[in-house]
Amino acid sequence: MDFGSVLLMFVVLLVLARLGSRVFARFGIPGLIGEILVGVAVANLAIGDWSLMAMLDIEMTSFNDNYQIILLFAEFGVIFLLFSIGLETKVDELMSVGKAAMLVAIMGVLLPLTMGILFTELIGENLHVAVFMGVAMVATSVGVTARVIKDMGFLDTKESRIIIGAAIIDDILGMVILALAIGLVSGSGDFEVKHLLLLSLAAVAFVLITMFSAKYLVPRIHDRLKERSDAKAANDNGYKPNFNKLLLALVICLAFSWMADFIGLAAIIGAFLGGMLIAEYAVGWKLDFKVESIMTLFLSFFFLNVGMQIDLAQCANWTVVGLSIAVVAIAVFSKYVGCSLGARFGDKTLDKTSAGIIGIGMIPRGEVGIIVATYGLQHGVLSMEIYTVLIVMAVATTIIAPSLLSSRFMCKYPLECDPHPRL
Amino acid sequence: MDFGSVLLMFVVLLVLARLGSRVFARFGIPGLIGEILVGVAVANLAIGDWSLMAMLDIEMTSFNDNYQIILLFAEFGVIFLLFSIGLETKVDELMSVGKAAMLVAIMGVLLPLTMGILFTELIGENLHVAVFMGVAMVATSVGVTARVIKDMGFLDTKESRIIIGAAIIDDILGMVILALAIGLVSGSGDFEVKHLLLLSLAAVAFVLITMFSAKYLVPRIHDRLKERSDAKAANDNGYKPNFNKLLLALVICLAFSWMADFIGLAAIIGAFLGGMLIAEYAVGWKLDFKVESIMTLFLSFFFLNVGMQIDLAQCANWTVVGLSIAVVAIAVFSKYVGCSLGARFGDKTLDKTSAGIIGIGMIPRGEVGIIVATYGLQHGVLSMEIYTVLIVMAVATTIIAPSLLSSRFMCKYPLECDPHPRL
Repeated sequence: MDFGSVLLMFVVLLVLARLGSRVFARFGIPGLIGEILVGVAVANLAIGDWSLMAMLDIEMTSFNDNYQIILLFAEFGVIFLLFSIGLETKVDELMSVGKAAMLVAIMGVLLPLTMGILFTELIGENLHVAVFMGVAMVATSVGVTARVIKDMGFLDTKESRIIIGAAIIDDILGMVILALAIGLVSGSGDFEVKHLLLLSLAAVAFVLITMFSAKYLVPRIHDRLKERSDAKAANDNGYKPNFNKLLLALVICLAFSWMADFIGLAAIIGAFLGGMLIAEYAVGWKLDFKVESIMTLFLSFFFLNVGMQIDLAQCANWTVVGLSIAVVAIAVFSKYVGCSLGARFGDKTLDKTSAGIIGIGMIPRGEVGIIVATYGLQHGVLSMEIYTVLIVMAVATTIIAPSLLSSRFMCKYPLECDPHPRL
Repeated sequence: MDFGSVLLMFVVLLVLARLGSRVFARFGIPGLIGEILVGVAVANLAIGDWSLMAMLDIEMTSFNDNYQIILLFAEFGVIFLLFSIGLETKVDELMSVGKAAMLVAIMGVLLPLTMGILFTELIGENLHVAVFMGVAMVATSVGVTARVIKDMGFLDTKESRIIIGAAIIDDILGMVILALAIGLVSGSGDFEVKHLLLLSLAAVAFVLITMFSAKYLVPRIHDRLKERSDAKAANDNGYKPNFNKLLLALVICLAFSWMADFIGLAAIIGAFLGGMLIAEYAVGWKLDFKVESIMTLFLSFFFLNVGMQIDLAQCANWTVVGLSIAVVAIAVFSKYVGCSLGARFGDKTLDKTSAGIIGIGMIPRGEVGIIVATYGLQHGVLSMEIYTVLIVMAVATTIIAPSLLSSRFMCKYPLECDPHPRL
């Protein structure tokens, strides 16, 4: 690793991402879309086969070599984002929307899955391809929605809580469905009902135990420790050993991300739960402010990396373009309708605008769709064309949602909204 | 890259580093020594040939694979540390100690260089080996000293300023001497006086231009931009677009680190200069607090990584042990005496304790010594034994300095010192 080239890459990417973000924000479009498009531009202008640099014969291998670092920072970025959202979410608030979130998640899984499978069968692909298409359309990636909600200051609304609750349940359902799909594709060998049951149980237990701990266990431990340290300080001339609360928070964030990943959930779900675990103390410990600082270094890489998945050379193919348009339309429509309906059924007090916000908030597929598509490609189930279509679907749904979401939120809460969100 | 294993590694290393730090701090020893020793323990217990894991036959390859990430975070950690020191250093303060810093640097280079060469000649090695030994003993690595000074709250003393100023000059001198040594070893082919002259000129110009900009250019640009944004805000109902100052600061930090690295200086010297460039605004923009948060995630990896260089299996060799003791003694003595004398000559108002503080603060060789040793090993100049001795020298000087430094500072400023430094 050449550290000099890493530094240069960071400077260039951070500056470009910021410029992209500012230009889009100036026109009232969420800035992260600018960051994603900078990612598309960098990947295709700087390092692709079609790249400007290749034409000018300029050496850009260091960008290629350093992609692993971008990926690492992207993962950390979205983990800290969800952690900071968790820090602002109390367990009771999340539990109060439990029923609605459950229905949103279930209907938001069933509709995309069936529509995805039916469409793929219709265009004449076999069942395995159809199942993978359906599964890739299932899992919502809550990162981009979370960023928009946080930047606009709407975390404290019922709609936001339902979206976040639904995203957690959605991820568990998605994990089970992906395991079933892999079992189907790989035949009986890798597929064991017992194993799948254990995994889902572990995932549910992880979520429930964390929520229980946040509500009953952590406050007790905190009070006990505080009593002890106060008593000690009284003996020691009022001296309290300096306790690094940010480090504790970071360890919790990373440990919960790891546990989620270990069970088979998305790491960001773990990060969110870890944040919720200590949400009571977030403001007192100034964690919100501190985690925000750390995010400043990392988060742009997440959105850049979303854009970097798009290889324009692969997309210049009419089959891919046509299929992409259809698949994106189905992905948007099925998630929107499924989740909106789920919201209306789950909570009768929600009006149409609120149900719409929830539907839009669940649209982005992002990295989960990409993971499923990559698995399908590597195991010979999906052709390169279908793979590209799914990547386009994941990126396009991520780009479409933010603008719609912010305008709908403004519609619903015209007075409370920051007219110049920091996006 | 398996992100799950990266997360687990981070959790384990951060917790262990913190434990090591707390245990040592409890006994009044700077906590970063605990972190370094945890690094030694992890590298040798977990992943070496002699490791516990190897004996228990536990798979630890992921730790090995992930070492590049530790290295990356270590580099970022020490860069942000020096950046934060720069943020607290005004140009005028640094310039007021210019003469003393210059003398400290020059004498702190000459004495270790000559003593290192003489000693190596004495034990019967050839001139090439002797020159590399001497050069490896030259360059002070200011990271550990900076951390101790910062944690104890002594950045605002004359001694600290002289140490930091001397470290910058020391780095330029070290670069020139290393280039000369490489020229000597590789013969006339790679060695060009013109090239060397250009490099040194570039390094000096980089430092001077940055200092000039910090004093005259940046305040003007800042005032001009502020006027414009105020005028704009007056036209736009008082709305000021949100400007992310932390991001600007991070870009400056990384850009200056890259420039320093590009010229051939240590990246941390660039980070320090970048911080000094905007030191006027550090408090107003809350940069000190924000960069500190970012450092919390990164900095432990720097000290862990220092310890990880030590391969205990290599050190279990009486020749290595004997040579190491002699070389460490020479390295400590020559730097201490050289720099203390330089300080006394350079600034007559400094007393013996102050000169001692400066001498001790310059002792750590750290990563610069390791880089020189690695270069020598890879190019066949140094044997594995001599290489190991130099690594031990770099790590040992880094471990020896902090305790001496903190006790000397307490001696000099008994009242102003935080009795329980956060180390």
